[in-house]
Amino acid sequence: MVDVLIKNGFLLTMKGEGVGAIEDGAVAIEGNRIVAVGKTQDVERQFPSAGQTFDARGKAVLPGFVDAHIHTGMTILRGQGQDVPEIEWMLKTQGPFGRYTTSEHRLKASTLGVLEALKSGTTCFGEIGAGSEVVEKVYVPSGVRAKIGSTINEISPGSQRSAYELYEFDSAAGERRLAQSLDMVNKWHGAAGGRITCLLAPQAADMVSKELLLRVKEIAKEKDLLVHIHIAQGGREEIQMKLRYGKSAPRFLDEIGFLDSSVIGAHCHQTTDEEVALLAQRKIRYVSCPSSISIIDGITPPLQVYLAAGGWAAGLGSDQASGNNSHNMMTELKIAALLNKTRHRDPTVLPAWKVLRIATIEGARCIGLDREIGSLEEGKKADLMMLNLKVPHLTPVISTPVRNVAPNIVYSARGDEVETVIVDGKVLMENRRVLTMDEESVIEEAQRAAEEVTSKAAEDYYKADSLLAKTMKKGLL
Amino acid sequence: MVDVLIKNGFLLTMKGEGVGAIEDGAVAIEGNRIVAVGKTQDVERQFPSAGQTFDARGKAVLPGFVDAHIHTGMTILRGQGQDVPEIEWMLKTQGPFGRYTTSEHRLKASTLGVLEALKSGTTCFGEIGAGSEVVEKVYVPSGVRAKIGSTINEISPGSQRSAYELYEFDSAAGERRLAQSLDMVNKWHGAAGGRITCLLAPQAADMVSKELLLRVKEIAKEKDLLVHIHIAQGGREEIQMKLRYGKSAPRFLDEIGFLDSSVIGAHCHQTTDEEVALLAQRKIRYVSCPSSISIIDGITPPLQVYLAAGGWAAGLGSDQASGNNSHNMMTELKIAALLNKTRHRDPTVLPAWKVLRIATIEGARCIGLDREIGSLEEGKKADLMMLNLKVPHLTPVISTPVRNVAPNIVYSARGDEVETVIVDGKVLMENRRVLTMDEESVIEEAQRAAEEVTSKAAEDYYKADSLLAKTMKKGLL
Repeated sequence: MVDVLIKNGFLLTMKGEGVGAIEDGAVAIEGNRIVAVGKTQDVERQFPSAGQTFDARGKAVLPGFVDAHIHTGMTILRGQGQDVPEIEWMLKTQGPFGRYTTSEHRLKASTLGVLEALKSGTTCFGEIGAGSEVVEKVYVPSGVRAKIGSTINEISPGSQRSAYELYEFDSAAGERRLAQSLDMVNKWHGAAGGRITCLLAPQAADMVSKELLLRVKEIAKEKDLLVHIHIAQGGREEIQMKLRYGKSAPRFLDEIGFLDSSVIGAHCHQTTDEEVALLAQRKIRYVSCPSSISIIDGITPPLQVYLAAGGWAAGLGSDQASGNNSHNMMTELKIAALLNKTRHRDPTVLPAWKVLRIATIEGARCIGLDREIGSLEEGKKADLMMLNLKVPHLTPVISTPVRNVAPNIVYSARGDEVETVIVDGKVLMENRRVLTMDEESVIEEAQRAAEEVTSKAAEDYYKADSLLAKTMKKGLL
Repeated sequence: MVDVLIKNGFLLTMKGEGVGAIEDGAVAIEGNRIVAVGKTQDVERQFPSAGQTFDARGKAVLPGFVDAHIHTGMTILRGQGQDVPEIEWMLKTQGPFGRYTTSEHRLKASTLGVLEALKSGTTCFGEIGAGSEVVEKVYVPSGVRAKIGSTINEISPGSQRSAYELYEFDSAAGERRLAQSLDMVNKWHGAAGGRITCLLAPQAADMVSKELLLRVKEIAKEKDLLVHIHIAQGGREEIQMKLRYGKSAPRFLDEIGFLDSSVIGAHCHQTTDEEVALLAQRKIRYVSCPSSISIIDGITPPLQVYLAAGGWAAGLGSDQASGNNSHNMMTELKIAALLNKTRHRDPTVLPAWKVLRIATIEGARCIGLDREIGSLEEGKKADLMMLNLKVPHLTPVISTPVRNVAPNIVYSARGDEVETVIVDGKVLMENRRVLTMDEESVIEEAQRAAEEVTSKAAEDYYKADSLLAKTMKKGLL
C-alpha cells in the first residue's frame, strides 16, 4: 500500500538524456518520495493498492517546474513597468514604488506570485529577495518547495539617483542585510522537512563592495551554501561597473576569484559571448530569464551561448511580474526556445526536449537540488504535475513518427492545462483548485495592496516621467 | 430594446490612436452590429433593456482577434515538424504526410484549428488553403468570420524533390487551382450574411509562374478582391528564386508590377531591411507570424522593420500548427513583442498598446475588413470577447499611474481567460463552452484523423530522415 498512485498517464520522467517518455506509465508515492516509476502494469503489480489513486488517462505527468530565479515580492506591480528604455526600468518605473511598499504589501505580492506560478506547474521557487516573514507566511504554508535568499546589498533607499552617477555604498546597510540573511539561513535552511532551503544572495557586483562580496563567498563556503547573484544585468549595471572598476561584472568577478560552481549567476545578458564562455568555464550555474530580459532590456539572454560553451547547469526563471509580466514557466518554455532560435538564426537551437529538461531536471541542478527533485525517479522527492492533454491545443497525441507530447507542451501549452500538482508528496492543487490557499482572497488582498501602493506612488511615478508615464499621459493605454 | 447588452466591463475599444480604454463601459448590440459603446450609465440610459445582458464586472471587453494568416488544415500535424533546419521543414517534415492526407482529414484538422483559435479569442480567420468544403462544413457552421483563399500554385504533388532543384511548373495544375479559387469566390464571397469573404491566394513567387501571377492579379483587380501571397518565406524559396530568376522574391514581384495595396504579403522574413522597406513603399499589407517563423526559420519576421518603414497595414498570424505549434493569438501577442524587441535590441519596440492594435484593428485593416470589424465602435459588426481579469496572473487591475490591463493582457494572458466570444452578434462561446461545436467530438475526430495519417506516413517520414526523425530515433522525445 502506497500513499499515492498515479496511473495510465503519459510520463515525461526526464530520466536519461531526453524527456524519458513512458507511455501508459505510473508513479507510486510513499510519504514525500517516489517509490516506483514505470509502466502502469508493472507499478500496479508492485503496489496494488494506494491511499489515493489518480487516473491519468489522457494526461501527461511530469516533474514540477523549477523557476530558478523569481522575485515574488513585486507581483503587485504587474504592468507598471514595461516598454520603456532599459535605463529607465529600475529607476523610473520601479523606484517610485519603493518608499510606499511595506512588508505587508510584499507579503500579499508574494502570495499572489506563488499562487500564480503554482497554477501553471511551478513547484520549486528560486526566490530572491524574500525575508523570513515571506518564508513563514507564504512558502511554508503554501506547500511549495523553495531555495531562498534574502538580498544583500549596500544601497540605501533613494540613493540611486541616476545610472550615470556612482551609487554610494552604505556598509552599515550591507552588514544589516548580511545579518538578516544569516538569520534566515539559521532559521529556515532545511525547514519544513527539507522543503525550504536557503542560500546567500548578494544582489550584484555594482551594489555590493568587493570586500563584502568576498566575505559572503567565504561564509557561503563555510556553511556549504550556494550564492545566487545577478551578473551583468543590463546597461545600468555596466555603467556602474565601468565607473567604479573600469571593467565589466564578469571580468571583475573573475578577477576577485568570485566565480566557481557554488555561484548561481542570473541574467548575464549585458555580455559578450566571450564573457559568457568565461562564466561557463568557471563553472557557474546559470539562470536565464528570457521573457523578463527581453521585455526590460530588449536582449535575448545567452542561454544557448552558455550551453554551447559547456555550461553545466542552466535553469529558467520568470524574474518579476513588473517586467515579465507573469510567473508562468509553461509559457516561458516556448519563449526561451524562440528567443534563442532567433538570437542564433538557427531553428535547431533549444529543441523541445532540451527546453523541458532545463525547466525541470537541469533547473534543479542549477539551484543545487537535482539529487532531490527535477525528474520522476525512484528515491526522489515527489514534486510533479498532471496536465490535461485532451484539449484542442494539445490535440492530437501521437507516438509515431514523432512522439509529439513534449514539443506540444513546450510550444502550445500555456499553463491552464495543469490540473493537479503534488509537492513533497502532498497534493497542493487538484482539478485546478489550490488546496493550500484561498484563491479569491489572495486576489482580493493583492488587489487592495496594489491599489494602496500605486495610488500613493502615482505622483512620484509621473514625476519620474518614464516613457510608460508618457504613454499614459498621451492616453494610449 | 437591444439584442445584447454587455455592461460594467473594462473596455478596450481600439478607437483612436491607442487602446481606447473605457472603464465601467458597455456595448449594445442589435442584430449583428454594435449600436452603442460608452460608459455603462450612458449606454443603459439609451438602451434600458436587452434580450440578453452580460455583466462584465471584473472582465475586459475587447474586439475579437484577427488571425490574419492561418492554415487550419494542418492542425492534425501538430508536433510533427519543429526544431529542424529550415531547409528540412517543408520537404522532410511536412512532405511525407501529403500523400496520405485526404480532404476528410483536412476537414477534421480545420475544425480543430478553428475551435482552438476561437477558444483563445480569435474571431476572424485569414485562412489560406481551405477549399469550398472547409468553408461549408467548418467556417459557416462554426460562426466565425473568415477571409478565405484557396491556394493557387503550379506544383504537382511529389515534384518538390529538393530545395536545390528547380521545381517544375505544371500549368494544367495551375489552371485547375485557379478555376477552383474562382469557383470558391463565386460561391462564398459575401456568404453567411457577409461573414465569409474571399480573396485570391497564389502560394508564392517560386510556386507560380510569372504569367499566372499576373493573371491572378488582373482577375483580382477586375473582381475587386485582395491577393494574399507568401513572400520571401525562407531559404528554400530564396534558392528557388535565385535559380529561376536570379533575384529575390520582393525584387522579382516588384519588377513584374505585382506589388501594391491590394496585396497581403505573409512572412517576408528572408529579406534585407531594404527589401522590407520596398514592400512597405509599394503599400503592401503585411502579415507577420512570429512564432511560426522563429520556430521554422529561426528568424524574427520584420514586423517592426515594416512599421518603421511606413507600412500601413500590419497583422499577426499563427500560420500552422505543424510549426507554431498553436493557433493562439493571445500568446502570439507577447511573442510578437519580445521577438521584435530583441531583433532591434530595443525594449520600447512594439509596446503593448501597439501589439493589441495589430491583433485587432490593424489586423482587420491588413485583410481589408477594418471598416467592418477590429474595434468596438457604433456601426461596426459585433465581433468581441469578454476576458476574465479576476485571475492570479492578471491581478492587480490598476488605473493609475499605469492603466495596466492592456499590458497585462499582452504579456501575461494566455487564452483561457477568454470566457465569452461574440461574432456577428451571435454568442459563439459562453463561459468557455463553445456553442457551435461539440468540443469533445472535434478532439476525438481530429485524433483519429491524425492517427490515420501519421501511421501511414511514418515509414516515409523516417526515410526522409529530418533532424526530428533522428531525435526520435535517439529516443530523446
